[in-house]
Amino acid sequence: MFSIEELQEKIANSLKQLPVYDEPAGLYQPISYTLEQGGKRLRPLLALVSAQVFGGNPDKALPAATAIEIFHNFTLLHDDIIDQAPLRRGRDTVHKKWNINTAILSGDTMFAIAFGQLAKSDPEKLPGLMDVFTKTAIEVCEGQQYDINFEESDNVSIDGYINMIRLKTAVLLAASLKIGAIIAGADEDECSKIYQFGENLGIAFQLQDDLLDAFGDEGLFGKKTGGDIVANKKTYLYLKTWECASQEDRERLKSLYSTRNQNDEDKVVEILAIFERYGIKSLTGEVIMNYYNKALQNLAGIRLSEESKAPLLSLAEGMLKRNH
Amino acid sequence: MFSIEELQEKIANSLKQLPVYDEPAGLYQPISYTLEQGGKRLRPLLALVSAQVFGGNPDKALPAATAIEIFHNFTLLHDDIIDQAPLRRGRDTVHKKWNINTAILSGDTMFAIAFGQLAKSDPEKLPGLMDVFTKTAIEVCEGQQYDINFEESDNVSIDGYINMIRLKTAVLLAASLKIGAIIAGADEDECSKIYQFGENLGIAFQLQDDLLDAFGDEGLFGKKTGGDIVANKKTYLYLKTWECASQEDRERLKSLYSTRNQNDEDKVVEILAIFERYGIKSLTGEVIMNYYNKALQNLAGIRLSEESKAPLLSLAEGMLKRNH
Repeated sequence: MFSIEELQEKIANSLKQLPVYDEPAGLYQPISYTLEQGGKRLRPLLALVSAQVFGGNPDKALPAATAIEIFHNFTLLHDDIIDQAPLRRGRDTVHKKWNINTAILSGDTMFAIAFGQLAKSDPEKLPGLMDVFTKTAIEVCEGQQYDINFEESDNVSIDGYINMIRLKTAVLLAASLKIGAIIAGADEDECSKIYQFGENLGIAFQLQDDLLDAFGDEGLFGKKTGGDIVANKKTYLYLKTWECASQEDRERLKSLYSTRNQNDEDKVVEILAIFERYGIKSLTGEVIMNYYNKALQNLAGIRLSEESKAPLLSLAEGMLKRNH
Repeated sequence: MFSIEELQEKIANSLKQLPVYDEPAGLYQPISYTLEQGGKRLRPLLALVSAQVFGGNPDKALPAATAIEIFHNFTLLHDDIIDQAPLRRGRDTVHKKWNINTAILSGDTMFAIAFGQLAKSDPEKLPGLMDVFTKTAIEVCEGQQYDINFEESDNVSIDGYINMIRLKTAVLLAASLKIGAIIAGADEDECSKIYQFGENLGIAFQLQDDLLDAFGDEGLFGKKTGGDIVANKKTYLYLKTWECASQEDRERLKSLYSTRNQNDEDKVVEILAIFERYGIKSLTGEVIMNYYNKALQNLAGIRLSEESKAPLLSLAEGMLKRNH
């Protein structure tokens, strides 16, 4: 059994040992820049832990785990263009540091490199892995498109929002776990349960991210709160408040969410006060716990000893503990 | 044996029978729009013909052939953003008809769909197919990056230019042929020779495209000539003329290629006159024939009867016949 730290080291090494691509530098420098930036490497870790939990050798899951991390970073690169984000993990985004064309093309190349890594998996497992990987990649794009649509829509339902974060965030976490399970030779039922575990966990994780963006401790959370509010993002917090709010508060919400020119700090303070008026912190906390409990039920349905499953439970707790 | 027309119909049907993706419409409408546009479907045809020539069943190559066509259209979609092209096959490009973000995201989705199609190939062949496909996808991105670099460089060599068109255009034609051969169970030597055939043919094909862009018959060629000159593209014609030109003509070339504001027609006429002064039409014709003859040698090295190879020869002639 490898410890989490050992698995993390495997991931770091695998990313460092990617085939040396260097020319044309204009294409590959932004890729190195992106992959060097670190981040939590959560998705590949889920894949390796899952492989180990299901009795497989995590080294066999390493190419696919690496593929997942490269794919994830590719999506961030293109999302940052679309969202016109200037910063990612405290550094200039690729389209800012270079330009949009470079960010498009370097991203495309990363997508291809990701599939190249996936193809290093056991040939017998490859068709199954390709199915999960391509389906997930398509869904992540769908999620991003819904996110774009919602920005311009006055008519976003809570169900629609949950489906968007499921596609944009949760399915890749779910796929990471399933990919580990497939490589370990888990049966279809187990693969399906671990996927559902990841999907529910992922929704809880994203909702918590929304909550922390509004109410997190800036010191602990590591980024400025209120970003979603400034960007007029219709998160769960906004949609649920809207559902509960008086006509007067709805009008104020709508008016505040339709501008970008006013003083940001005043806007955040006023919106948070409206959110608090309807108890949105605890309402959101409840729905997070709902999804988290669903995830735990999915995990409980997997016929392995509690001891074997402990690393997954511990990862899940780690993902959500910032909230408790 | 299926005729070319029958194979073309298989390709058209396969593209029509893609899984019905419809929501979100903002993502999938641009994809349908792109794939409906037709085009010659040359790459999937090369894959099917190659499969048949090597004694395989073209139906087995159909998923991979479909993947190649979707991939090719994805690259066009992103290239059109990068090149700021307003039109493609006489219709608005996706980023013009929708917007850049849509074109990025729909393109990404097509890339994923392409891999999803590829994964429907015979599982035993999948690892080999993935190797060719991912390597090729990476090279096509490299080619596009070199093309971007060359636009801003005063120091492009003829070898560098040939390498750029090899990556940007030829390797995908080569890969299409190789993929057909792999699926038909051709041995490594045959796969390598058919790849080289495609690579040399592809370089000849692109050089001819450059030539026709400058000197083609607008009626026959179907698009306005002089486009590369107006866009200041340093094609083989420009680079070879530069090599031969007097100091005076070099200065004139450089000056004409550094502006975009002057009268386009006058510019094209003047550049063509300089090109003609150095016999660039026949010089380019010679180098095209060089690559074409190399391709024919590669084909001759494949141990199949002349009769079996005839369909490949006929396709190759068809690709270049516009020039003769």
